[in-house]
Formats: sequence, C-alpha cells, structure tokens
Amino acid sequence: MKGIKIFKGLENVAVAKTSLSHINGEKGRLIYRGIPVEILAEKATFEEVAFLLWFGYLPNRKELDDLIKFMSDNRNIHSEIEDWIVKFPREAHPMDVLRSCVSLFGVFENSRGSHDEIQKAAKITAKFPTIVSYHYRLSRGLNPVPPDKTLDHASNFYYMMTGEKPDEEISKLMNSIFILHAEQGLNASTFAAMVIASTLSDMYSSITGAIGALKGALHGGANEKVIDMIEDIGLPENVESYVEEALKEKRKIPGFGHRVYKTYDPRSKVLREYARKLSSKMDDIKYFPVTEKLEKVVVEKLAHKKIFPNVDLYSGIVYKLLGFPKEIYTTIFAIARVVGWTAHIIEYNKFNKIIRPCGVYIGPMNAEYIPLEARE
Amino acid sequence: MKGIKIFKGLENVAVAKTSLSHINGEKGRLIYRGIPVEILAEKATFEEVAFLLWFGYLPNRKELDDLIKFMSDNRNIHSEIEDWIVKFPREAHPMDVLRSCVSLFGVFENSRGSHDEIQKAAKITAKFPTIVSYHYRLSRGLNPVPPDKTLDHASNFYYMMTGEKPDEEISKLMNSIFILHAEQGLNASTFAAMVIASTLSDMYSSITGAIGALKGALHGGANEKVIDMIEDIGLPENVESYVEEALKEKRKIPGFGHRVYKTYDPRSKVLREYARKLSSKMDDIKYFPVTEKLEKVVVEKLAHKKIFPNVDLYSGIVYKLLGFPKEIYTTIFAIARVVGWTAHIIEYNKFNKIIRPCGVYIGPMNAEYIPLEARE
Repeated sequence: MKGIKIFKGLENVAVAKTSLSHINGEKGRLIYRGIPVEILAEKATFEEVAFLLWFGYLPNRKELDDLIKFMSDNRNIHSEIEDWIVKFPREAHPMDVLRSCVSLFGVFENSRGSHDEIQKAAKITAKFPTIVSYHYRLSRGLNPVPPDKTLDHASNFYYMMTGEKPDEEISKLMNSIFILHAEQGLNASTFAAMVIASTLSDMYSSITGAIGALKGALHGGANEKVIDMIEDIGLPENVESYVEEALKEKRKIPGFGHRVYKTYDPRSKVLREYARKLSSKMDDIKYFPVTEKLEKVVVEKLAHKKIFPNVDLYSGIVYKLLGFPKEIYTTIFAIARVVGWTAHIIEYNKFNKIIRPCGVYIGPMNAEYIPLEARE
Repeated sequence: MKGIKIFKGLENVAVAKTSLSHINGEKGRLIYRGIPVEILAEKATFEEVAFLLWFGYLPNRKELDDLIKFMSDNRNIHSEIEDWIVKFPREAHPMDVLRSCVSLFGVFENSRGSHDEIQKAAKITAKFPTIVSYHYRLSRGLNPVPPDKTLDHASNFYYMMTGEKPDEEISKLMNSIFILHAEQGLNASTFAAMVIASTLSDMYSSITGAIGALKGALHGGANEKVIDMIEDIGLPENVESYVEEALKEKRKIPGFGHRVYKTYDPRSKVLREYARKLSSKMDDIKYFPVTEKLEKVVVEKLAHKKIFPNVDLYSGIVYKLLGFPKEIYTTIFAIARVVGWTAHIIEYNKFNKIIRPCGVYIGPMNAEYIPLEARE
C-alpha cells in the first residue's frame, strides 16, 4: 500500500460543484450566490437569504411572503416532542437536545412525508428556534414562550428566548447574525450532511448528523472559548501580557485564524461593528473593549503569519451582550446554518453520487485465528 | 475555477490509515485485522470480533468474559427512552427510531460520561438490539421481551425479537451474520461517523449520523430490494426471463456488483451456505431455490463485466428464512456495523484532523442585491 497519497482532513480536495457560496480567502470575501455577505447582512432579512440559498435567486414580495408564512406556520413542534423536552435532564447539552429533537421529527414526519425538499428544509429550519428556546427556558425553570407569528424568524427567536419583543435595532442585528452564519461552503457539518444525503437517506437524518458535527470543539464550539478568554483577561490593560504569554507557550488564541481566510474574515468586521454598538448601548466596559484591544494586538503581532480575526471573535461577544447564555452559542450557529446544510443537500442530490472514500490499510495482511483456549 | 479536479464520491481517495480491515477486491478477500472474515464467521463469536476490532487483538478468556459481562449488563435502555418508544407512531421507520434513540442516549449519557471510548462503544453496541426489538414488538402490538443475560449478544437479539431462545444452529448463524457485517472499511456510514468525530464531537453524535447514512437506499437498504425481487420472480423457472428483461431494460439487479469487489464477495459465499441450510430446515421452496438460480444466471451473463453476488444477495434471504420482517433488515445491519463505526472513530481520533473538503464554485462571481421593491 506504500505510495498511496493520503488526503488528511481532505484539505483542498474538491468533492462537488456548488453555486451556493464562494470564499476568496486572500481577499477576505464571502459571497452567497454572487452577493457579498456584508451586503446581505446589511440589507436583507434571514428569510430572504434562506430563499436565495434554497431557490437560487432573490424572492419577489409574493414569494417572500409565502415563505415567511410557511415558516411561521411551521414553528410549532409536535406535542409529543414538547412533552419529551420537559423530561430531559436539566444539565443536558443543548446540541444533544437539538440533535435528538430533529431526529424525532424524522420519526413523525417521515411516516407522512409528501413535501418537496425545499418545503422540508423550510419546515426543519422553522422549528430550530422553538426547540432551542423551549429547552433553554425549561432548563432554567422558566415557562417556554410560544412563537409569535407577527415576528420574523430571527426576531421571534430572540422573543422566545427572552420573553421580550426586540426593538428594531436588535431585530436587525438578529437577522444579520443569522445571515452571516447561514452558509460557508463544505465545512465539516455541511459535509457530514452531504455524506449522509449521498446514500439517498432522508433530510432529517442528514441534519441530525450535521448538528452532531457542529457540536465538536473544533467546529461550532469556538466562540464559547472566546468568552472564556475575554473573562480571563478581564481588562484591556491585561491584553498585551496575555497575548505575549500565549505566543510564548505556543497556545492558539481563540477567535483568530482560519483554514481558508488568509486575511480578515468579512463577517468579523460586520460583527465587530455590531458588538461596538451593543457595547455602548449596554454600558459594557469589559467585553468589547478587551476584544477590540485583543484584535489590535494579535493583528500587529501575527498578520505576517496571515492570522486575522475570524467569525468567532465577535460573535460570542455579541451573544453575550444580547444576554444569551454561553451554552447555547453553538445552537444559534445551528439555527442559522441549517439553511446552508439543507441547501447543500438539495444541490448535491441533484447530481448525486454516494460518497465513499477509502482507507490505506496498514495492519497485518495474514494473521492467524488462534483458538480461544490457546490464547495467553 | 476551471481545471480543478473534482473527486466525485471520493472514489479511490484515501483519507486515513487504518488497521481495521482490508478488502482485496480482485481476489474477493476481506480481512479484519489480518484474519479472513470467513474464518471469523466460522469460528468466533460476535463479542470476540468486537474485541478484536476495538482492541486490536483476540481476547483471552478473562478479557472476553469481561466484555461479555459488560455488554450484557448494559443492554437495558433508560426507562424514559423505553416510555418514548411506546409513543412512536406504529408506522415509524425502524432506522428513524434507532437513530433517535441513540441520539437520546447521548442526551442522558453525555451529562454523566466518564467512560473511556471503548467502554462507550461497547455500551452503545449493547443497546442496539434492545431498541430494535422493543420498537418492533411494540409496533406489532406485542409485549417487548427483556434481554436475557444467559444469552450472547447475537442470540439474545434473536430471543428478544421472537420470544424464543435460539437452538445452537441458529445461535451460531446469528453470530456469523453479525460478524460478516461488523466492518467494511470507509463505506458511507462509517465515513459519516468519522467526519462527525473529526470535529471532536461525541460518540453518540457520530453514531447517530452513521445510522442516518446507513438508512439510505444506496447503502443499507439493498437487501430489502432483493426480497422484493425474489418474490416478484416467484419460481426458479422465471429467473432466466427476468434477468433477460432486466438486462434489456438496463435495470440494475439488486444483490449483484460492488464498487470494490470485482469477484465474489467472500461474505456472499458464507451467507449462501447458511441460506441453503436454513432453506432445507424450513422447507422453503421459493427463496433459496430462486436466489441460487438467479446467482447462476447472472454470473453466467455478467461475470465478464466483473459483476458477482454481493453481501446483500443472500443476507435478506437468511433474514427472511429466520422469520425477521423486511423493514428491520437495515437495523440488523446497523446492530452489527456499530462495532466497525465505533472502532473507526476511535482509530481516527488518535491522529485526528478535522475533515473539511472544498467545493468548486460555479455560480456567479458578482451579483447585485436588488432591493425587494424592485424585484419582478
């Protein structure tokens, strides 16, 4: 088997064509179907972007209204699943809960199932905020807040979490955050969804797998670590020594560096400005000031190594300032990314080929079966 | 983006080293850690093979007894999950049920979790037969049969399904079937598990994803199709015309051909002889005779194209003759394969790298954001 090249981590291995998004890592550019993500974050709503990713073009008023109505009509979760969430242990990991509830939807929905794939995608997407907020509130001993049809998808999530309707600024911010996290090529969770879908399994199976992948510390968990670090640092004047120590000990600094982006991740710039606004609105004297200083120091010291802020640096800060607890950050990522997951599944299945790589065998070629009695 | 090679389906792309199994497709040879699978199927028990795959060597008596005890002690499922299975719709897909129950275990176990990875693997493996048989019996209006600690893993599954303790012949057969399906390299379900594990997510997440992948018609579902075909054909004298028509219409014949095996899949030969024995024991005049004739005709006509029986041709027949209903065939596959899934996860995580391939963007590079009001 010698000489066979192993593509570890499949880095730079292309497995499919896609029209969904493109990253220019050198220029720090991310486009969804040709439109820069910053422009979408500034001007569009989450439902508009979901439509763009699923259907391939921006909806007109009627199409957008139809999608908004379909999604808000489908926010409720099956009463059986609601009953079960109540019985989950309080300390259950929110991503385990989300993964299980989506899998359970599959139990109920696959036995009905006549929806087309985009409808299924919209239905699954519609329910994510309900699961996350129900479990969150129940785990804190609070009554769940039922969805409000007058609110858009992102604003309604804020409302179900906090019990308060967001003002216009927060509503806009929630939409932007969701838009910025909706799609990012063939990352590990999206690829897990595609591998599952490539066997012609159902969408619930694929999304269940994607949630499982996003849960991993190397994938969705990074912004939690940013918050821990910022709380560790505590004050802007401690940043310099923190960074120096981290560099000396060759520790990675959470929120910086990316496999694809070799300059500023465009999403980090948008999120920085949101964090700045929120920080002054909330009289924050820790989270934003420390993070901004950290950005400055790290970029000064590491820009020559192409290490720049990534999407996680300010997203955790934004969630923190919005009042969301750390343990649900990864589920917020999932609430947005489910659009990208489903869009990739639908796209891949159109020209489907089962994804089945191979391994390089390095074990023994001939081993004897020694009978049990003769083993030492 | 022109000129970038796309590895569709990752065919022949090596993504990792492995010492678990090796297929020689030309010679029709499959080894688990160096030992031919036919020898293991003939001489070993399922627990022995699970130990071999997880630990890398054949256990001595004490080690095997410890594993047997650990697994039989862990067959019970949490009472909450048992209560939920009762409430699943009767027509729920058994693979959806299995996927959801494993995900739910994660909710309960991840909040305790101090087991090492092989213990976790053994614990998950121990519970699969209980989930499948409980849901099966409940969906038929039958009382579940609790696990029996005096029976080995494979025999106990037969017992929980049928309510009857298997005789020595069936017990041996059940072990062999499970052994033959325990491991098969980086197929789609195993690879899905590895992608999820590569983010450093937990084992429940990975196995949930693998079940989702195995469910797909291109992966675990093939032996159901064999049964449909055999029932369609009905009599050995109809085989010839059935095959000719299929070839004329360029239809694929289920149970034949494989991406890797270019001759007889060694597992198909073992299963054929089991099917032969069972067929005469059960006075079957349809399933085995039709399938054997089918094998003869297809091999005559298609051997020059390297199309031979695969593992699915006789496995469905064996399950049918054992009295298992068609809708649980894929779950039997999962009950055995969970050993390979978990073994690959543990092996991959030792030299882990996140699996993140890329896509080749073929969409527009510059698209304008037209305001909603201006869209047609």
